[in-house]
This record gives sequence, structure tokens and C-alpha cells, in this order.
Amino acid sequence: MTEEKDKTPKTIAELGEFGLIDLLTKNIELTQPSTVRGIGDDAAVLENGDKYLLISKDILLEGIHFDMVYQPLTHLGYKAVAINLSDIYAMNGTPTHILVGIGISSRYTLEAVQEIYKGIKLACKRYKVDFIGGDTSSSVQGLIISVTVLGSVDKDKVVYRGVSLPNELLCVSGDLGGAYAGLLILEREKAEFTANPDMQPDLTGNEYVLERFLKPEPRQDIIKIFKDLKIKPTAMIDISDGLASEIKHLCNYSDLGCAIFEDKIPIAKQTYEIAHSFKMDPTVFALNGGEDYELLFTIRQEDYDKIKNIAEISVIGHMNDNDSGINLITKSGSLVKIKAQGWDHLKK
Amino acid sequence: MTEEKDKTPKTIAELGEFGLIDLLTKNIELTQPSTVRGIGDDAAVLENGDKYLLISKDILLEGIHFDMVYQPLTHLGYKAVAINLSDIYAMNGTPTHILVGIGISSRYTLEAVQEIYKGIKLACKRYKVDFIGGDTSSSVQGLIISVTVLGSVDKDKVVYRGVSLPNELLCVSGDLGGAYAGLLILEREKAEFTANPDMQPDLTGNEYVLERFLKPEPRQDIIKIFKDLKIKPTAMIDISDGLASEIKHLCNYSDLGCAIFEDKIPIAKQTYEIAHSFKMDPTVFALNGGEDYELLFTIRQEDYDKIKNIAEISVIGHMNDNDSGINLITKSGSLVKIKAQGWDHLKK
Repeated sequence: MTEEKDKTPKTIAELGEFGLIDLLTKNIELTQPSTVRGIGDDAAVLENGDKYLLISKDILLEGIHFDMVYQPLTHLGYKAVAINLSDIYAMNGTPTHILVGIGISSRYTLEAVQEIYKGIKLACKRYKVDFIGGDTSSSVQGLIISVTVLGSVDKDKVVYRGVSLPNELLCVSGDLGGAYAGLLILEREKAEFTANPDMQPDLTGNEYVLERFLKPEPRQDIIKIFKDLKIKPTAMIDISDGLASEIKHLCNYSDLGCAIFEDKIPIAKQTYEIAHSFKMDPTVFALNGGEDYELLFTIRQEDYDKIKNIAEISVIGHMNDNDSGINLITKSGSLVKIKAQGWDHLKK
Repeated sequence: MTEEKDKTPKTIAELGEFGLIDLLTKNIELTQPSTVRGIGDDAAVLENGDKYLLISKDILLEGIHFDMVYQPLTHLGYKAVAINLSDIYAMNGTPTHILVGIGISSRYTLEAVQEIYKGIKLACKRYKVDFIGGDTSSSVQGLIISVTVLGSVDKDKVVYRGVSLPNELLCVSGDLGGAYAGLLILEREKAEFTANPDMQPDLTGNEYVLERFLKPEPRQDIIKIFKDLKIKPTAMIDISDGLASEIKHLCNYSDLGCAIFEDKIPIAKQTYEIAHSFKMDPTVFALNGGEDYELLFTIRQEDYDKIKNIAEISVIGHMNDNDSGINLITKSGSLVKIKAQGWDHLKK
């Protein structure tokens, strides 16, 4: 056996989520004339009369994506919908319908399941999405929520993960790292509670980051801004695994490199303070924390004037030729290659 | 507290799957103009230009829907797709696309996951369905497969679970009870293997029922027959939980009763023999076994001549007024009220 052959990944842990998806979905033949785009973007794209139909699905598993110790059930239902809607917004689309599959172990009461559905319905109402179907089953262990979302987009408005061009501006909505800060607070309180069950968790003053983690809001407002300002991003993705992982996707899809300026990465004051209290770097929260569900996108330089005064959009860098790689320009001016260490739960 | 109030179900087990779905999905507001039909049929129905878009999803959970001791992984992937396609055929539609969400525990090797995807791709190829998206995650325990299926149907061809009229003919495709016979064989071999691990399972001679359980084929051919013979069923449902459960759904949707003739229920020779070898009634297999994925439908009396010589379609009875209830006319001529004891895994 040659050295070369030994390098072929043989386990799921070696491959990681994206390597596994690539391996499993390569050589998929698409034969339906209505298929515009299959696997590989935030949502699949299908012909639908004079529009495109968008469709995506996510599964949330207890113990992997959420911890029942601190995840309120209504928020969980809400979040399960929200993160799916985010995939539709990442295509510059409007979500229209959801289906929900749920598996429940006998440990869950009827009231618990009703709480989850309350959250699902709340999110549907808020984002004007119709809840049209699904499946309900018992499970051997734990809670499973699988949401499928449908959306719609004008054909000339759909935005994929590619194609950006060199010098286009790299932008992000909202702020980053907050969800991870919230998770750290919850994990700390859980550890203290485990050590001393009489303790009351103290979450005061951390409301912003806790909500970022427990009940994220997908960026419907950003899609509206694009429409109002007549901007069409050249590429877009939602930030579920952290900026470092998503920027890598965007660059790979366009076969480009990029430069991100550390001092331009939007981070909320509360996120900063929590990072410091944990003696951690807030930039690492933004790069590798994940679960922020903000939008990362590129726009043409000539669109800069339209967005420069929009508080909810930050220009964090620009695209470069592929040769230059994916670089972070630190606050001290040095150049660091970005490695994606995003939240890949299949990698060990 | 009154007697009346005490009867309100308080647990999921008391409600069962259908009671739980009713409770969780009542008062769902539908506001999207493209929604034609939401929760409550084999698939949801949406406007899609001059056609209807059909969409449905199912989750399959290890330990609930399949047992890794005897479920070959390629067949499992195939079955996960097949049972979803069945929901589209039950609307008289044509499946077009699937999305697959999968959760895998660390106990599964890369090869195991590749086997599952091999089965998924096989089913896609056979039924000319495009595999366009999904989600891949690790799980704490066990395997989870969630498939979403999209389909298409001409607006004037869509068939719902209602509305039938009295005297319309109640028909079923293929034969019933085979999947349950296959399951019993597998459970018997599993029990023997557990008692004596050196034993080799003996499955010879039971190939038909084993395939019915492990690798069911959805009834694409029946939809083609309807088209060729210019028949539009007045109501249709697929048989996933057993004839008794599905007939109850059909009758409830049309607010009717029905009469089923026991001697008309199609049961394969192998199913009969296995039922007898277990000293069980083959009719019970057909009524309560489940997982046959045949189609149950009603047609107008005037369509009888068109189907009477079709081997794959059996007329098993007819619809009646609501007052008469849901009745089985046994081989001995007596009349028995049918109770749905279908495969409701949430009920204790």
C-alpha cells in the first residue's frame, strides 16, 4: 500500500461533516427538468412558474444541537424554525411553508411537546410561514426535530454561495460570537448547578447573548433592506458554523481568497465582556463560535454607498485572487491565515 | 372536577399518534395564498403554476421503525425513500425530488453510511427522483433518517383522503399483511439468534414477505394504471399502519361508513402460510399489520368494468352511510365492527 492511499479518510470523524457530505453526495445524477440547483447551497432551487422554489431541511438532535438542561422548550421549537428560515434568507428568498418531523421519547410529557409546538407556531406567525405538514413518532431516546422549509424567490434575485469577484466587499449582518458567549454562560451555570443543585442560576445581565443562543432571529430584515436599496449580493451564506467556516465556503465556491479585518468584525459589547471574563479572545468567538445565524455576503464596490450607513450591515473585508488565500488582518496589522474550526460535530 | 373533565387525555400514550397530531396541529392558521391543503392528508398541496406541488416528510428512527439486527443498510436507505414516495402516489401524484436528513451515532462506520446512501440513490434512480439536499449530523445514540419528498400533480387529478360517496367501491392494490409476516419471521430468527448466537438464520422460502418488509416498492404502477384507464379515484390513502387504521381515516374524511368483505382482502399465499405457522389469523395481518405501502382508494361504480380485470387491484367492499359504521363481513357471513389497532407506536 502506498503512502498516498493511506491518506484516504476511513472514518466519519476524519472526514468531518463537509467531507462526509461531499463523499456521500458525489455523482448524484439530476434528471428532473425542474431542478435548477441540488445539494451544495443553503437551499435547493427548483423551477416554480415565473419564480424559483427554495427548499432546505435541518435536523436538531438532543445532546448534539441542544441540551435540555437549559434549553426552554418553546424557544427550542422557535429556534428549529428560525434556523431553517435563515437558509431561505441566505438565498435572498422569502420563506413560505414549513413541515416538522418530531421524535419524542417517553420521558417527554404532553405539556413538553405542546411547549415545543407553541414555539414552532410562534415562529410561523412572526415570519408569516404556513405550517403544512410533518410526522410525529416516538423515539427510543431523546428528542429529534427535523424541519423542512420552503421559500420563494424571483428568478433574477436568487443569490448563491458563488460567484463573487476579486475586490468585491465582504459584509456581515448584525454581530457575531454572541450565541457562543450565551452558550458558555449556560454551560458555566450548568456546571455550577451540577456541583451544587441548590444553587439558583444567575443569568442576569447576559440577556442579549442568551437570546442569541436560545432564540435566534433569522435576518428577514436584511433581505428587505436589499430589496429597498436595490442591492443584489453577488454571493451569500448564513453563519451557522462560525465566520471562519462560512468564509471558507464562500471563497471556495467562487475560487477566490479574501482579506478580513479583525477590527471590522462586529461583536456586541456583552459578547466582548463575556469573552474577557472567560479570558478568551472575542474574535475567536466570532470566527469559530457558530450559531449566530447572521448573513455573510459579498456586494459590488459600487453598492458601498448604499449600505455604508446601515447599522445592521458591516463591511469586514474584501475578496482577493485565489492565490492570496483566506486571511485575517489582525488589529496589530499582522496577517493570519484563517483555518475553519467551525462547529463540526462529526469531526473529533 | 367533573367526570367529563377526567376523560381529557393527559399523556401522549393516552392520545396516540393521531390524537397527538390533532391536538398539536389544531388552530393552525394558513395565510400563504399558495397553500391549497395543509396538515391532514398524505401530502400537503401547494399552488405551482398550472400544477400542484405535493410535499410530505417522514422520520425513521432506529429502535422504533427499524432494528439494525436484521435491517440491511442499503434496503433501509431504499425503504426510507420508498415510503415517502408512497405518500405522493397516494395523492395520485408523481414524486420528483427528495431531501434527506440523517443523524448517525459514532457506532456507525463510514461504510455503513455509504450503504444507506447507496440504497437512497438506488430508489432515486428507480423512481426517477432527484436527490437535491439534506442535512448530516452526528447523534448521541442510534440512526435517524428523515426524508422530505416533493411531487407534482395536475390540478384536476389530485386525490385527497375524501370525498367518497355511499356505494362507491373500496379497492386496494397488491396484497396485504405480507410486511407483517416478514417482520414476524425476522423477529423469530432474531430471538433464536439471541438464544444461540452460533445459529445461522434460516430465511429460505420467505423471500416474498421479507422483501415486503425490508424493501417495499411504492405503487407507481397503480398511478400509471389510473392514468391509462382514465380513472380518478374519489379518495385515496396509502396503507402504512394497516387496513383497519387507513379505512377509518378514509371513512372519517368522507363522513361515511363502509363494508369490507373478508374473503375479498388480497393476501399472498406466503403470508397465509406464515400466519398459519404462527397460529394467527391472516386477516389480522392485513387489518393491523401495517407497513404494506399499498394504496387504498374508492372509485365510482361505473369505473368497475375498467378495473375488474386488473390483477393488481382488488375490490374489497363499498362505502356506506355514516350510520352503518365500519364493518367487516367475515367469511362465515357475520358482521364485525372494525377497530383500528394499527401500528401506533405512541400508544401504549
